[in-house]
Amino acid sequence: MTNIRLSANEDSIIILDQRKLPGKIEYLELRTAEEMYDAIKLLKVRGAPAIGIFAAYAVYVLSKTTKNVSELRAAADCVKSARPTAVNLAWAVERMLKSSDLRAECHAIHDEDVQMCKRISEYGLDLIKDGDGILTHCNAGPLATSRYGTGLGPLILGSERGFKFKVYADETRPLLQGARITALELMNVGVDVTLICDNMANVVMSQGKINAVFVGCDRVAANRDVANKVGTCTLAILAKHYGIPFYVFCPSSTIDSSAKSGADFVIEERDSGEITDLYFAERVAPVGVKCFNPSFDVTPASLITAIVTEFGVEWLSPSRS
Amino acid sequence: MTNIRLSANEDSIIILDQRKLPGKIEYLELRTAEEMYDAIKLLKVRGAPAIGIFAAYAVYVLSKTTKNVSELRAAADCVKSARPTAVNLAWAVERMLKSSDLRAECHAIHDEDVQMCKRISEYGLDLIKDGDGILTHCNAGPLATSRYGTGLGPLILGSERGFKFKVYADETRPLLQGARITALELMNVGVDVTLICDNMANVVMSQGKINAVFVGCDRVAANRDVANKVGTCTLAILAKHYGIPFYVFCPSSTIDSSAKSGADFVIEERDSGEITDLYFAERVAPVGVKCFNPSFDVTPASLITAIVTEFGVEWLSPSRS
Repeated sequence: MTNIRLSANEDSIIILDQRKLPGKIEYLELRTAEEMYDAIKLLKVRGAPAIGIFAAYAVYVLSKTTKNVSELRAAADCVKSARPTAVNLAWAVERMLKSSDLRAECHAIHDEDVQMCKRISEYGLDLIKDGDGILTHCNAGPLATSRYGTGLGPLILGSERGFKFKVYADETRPLLQGARITALELMNVGVDVTLICDNMANVVMSQGKINAVFVGCDRVAANRDVANKVGTCTLAILAKHYGIPFYVFCPSSTIDSSAKSGADFVIEERDSGEITDLYFAERVAPVGVKCFNPSFDVTPASLITAIVTEFGVEWLSPSRS
Repeated sequence: MTNIRLSANEDSIIILDQRKLPGKIEYLELRTAEEMYDAIKLLKVRGAPAIGIFAAYAVYVLSKTTKNVSELRAAADCVKSARPTAVNLAWAVERMLKSSDLRAECHAIHDEDVQMCKRISEYGLDLIKDGDGILTHCNAGPLATSRYGTGLGPLILGSERGFKFKVYADETRPLLQGARITALELMNVGVDVTLICDNMANVVMSQGKINAVFVGCDRVAANRDVANKVGTCTLAILAKHYGIPFYVFCPSSTIDSSAKSGADFVIEERDSGEITDLYFAERVAPVGVKCFNPSFDVTPASLITAIVTEFGVEWLSPSRS
């Protein structure tokens, strides 16, 4: 499954609609800034690195239909505003706008991501051993990135080399990226994966089934606080409680030095309907119920064992394994 | 909404089908042991105290259609086997079978529950103050008990007395008792309730919105380890992390002295379909995905601030508030 690519005559982007997985493989063709904004906002394309790649292609495609630099800047700003927490989005847009060869630059951003994911996966694989139980949250696999993924990269790379991991995937409410995408991606490459509800992570940890927690992330502050899908910080607190190492995987472009700490992050709040109406299904909560739906949480650096980027493993606290 | 009662001529039990809430108010009439087993197993009736009351009426109704004591024992054992973790179920069945006046005994069990819930609610209300933020999980309200409830009892009683609490209700995957029932019960009596996904509890705690966690429970061991809906222990670990008091509410009949610790509890595992097919809705996980679906978890006594029964507040650790 190729998730993001240019059309043959390079005037549109073709993406796999991630909202339809695992039931349907459906591709969408996007031409306008509004369509691209919607694709990010509505999670047709998702995953911090994938959003960065998408945004790079978006700026290239938009450069063909806008008349001048200020029009392109306006269109790019529209795309950039779709998800405030994902730093790769802004990073990719700004890098594109500074480039003199947009076509080469968007391909470079994509190619670099493939290489980065491979290197991240190699570093991550050194942190675990054959037979380990790994808990993951949300989706940090190939569809969220380019190839291999970040958090899932070591598991997929290890599987190619014959390692047998036992992976537990949180379903990840409200939008179920773990159930819909992580479970699918791991099953597709033959990794042993067991799906659990988010509130069951504690059970598998307490039963000694988990040797490490692997997650991706959307933004890292200068002090190494990490923003990722809501529920991530809970896993970090549980991992600390049980003495299990907690690893965060991301390209170095995810590190946002302009944010001193997690307190500087803008945390996106999303629609109540995501909670009350489940995933495109019937309503399950009373009509008129008040909801709080933060899309991300912030995991303090003190709860993180290490952050793994394409440059290596940055240890934040002694390994607990 | 009366959730459990005898029919007029006392040869059947009439229950509110809790699976259909909040969308539909639908009553079911149950006559046979198999129908009663199904009602408990399929969560048409749920909540540890409510299951006890239901089982008491069940034994009374079954005593009218069975020919002798050993037939009644067999029918009662069938009902008793429906949910192994809920100790009130076995407790109520055994108490009924020892009684010489089954009609008086089942009404006594019901009436005692009403009185117990009221006393539990009074003790609980002393633990909080007007304006407090309270986090709750699953459903420990009137529909899970008789009146007031256990975990929700202090909030409903306090509301009658003019206290304004801000309650956060975990939706409680996989069967969404928090979204469907707790939110409904609190809205019905005018309590300010906000629905969140289970993995968002950490966010509201980290933002200082929570002064105490209130939960019911299904079984308490001699050492005060507590079995309750899966996700409860996660909240206890989070509460400890943030220094928030964690209170467990139950009638004293929930304490099972035959279990030395939580290690002696049988933890029910339920169908994968509860995770993969959401709540009677479309499939969201890949076909063939392996699932792990424990229905309860065990919270070690060391993580519990106090257990509140009809006899008062038993402190297990110093108050954190």
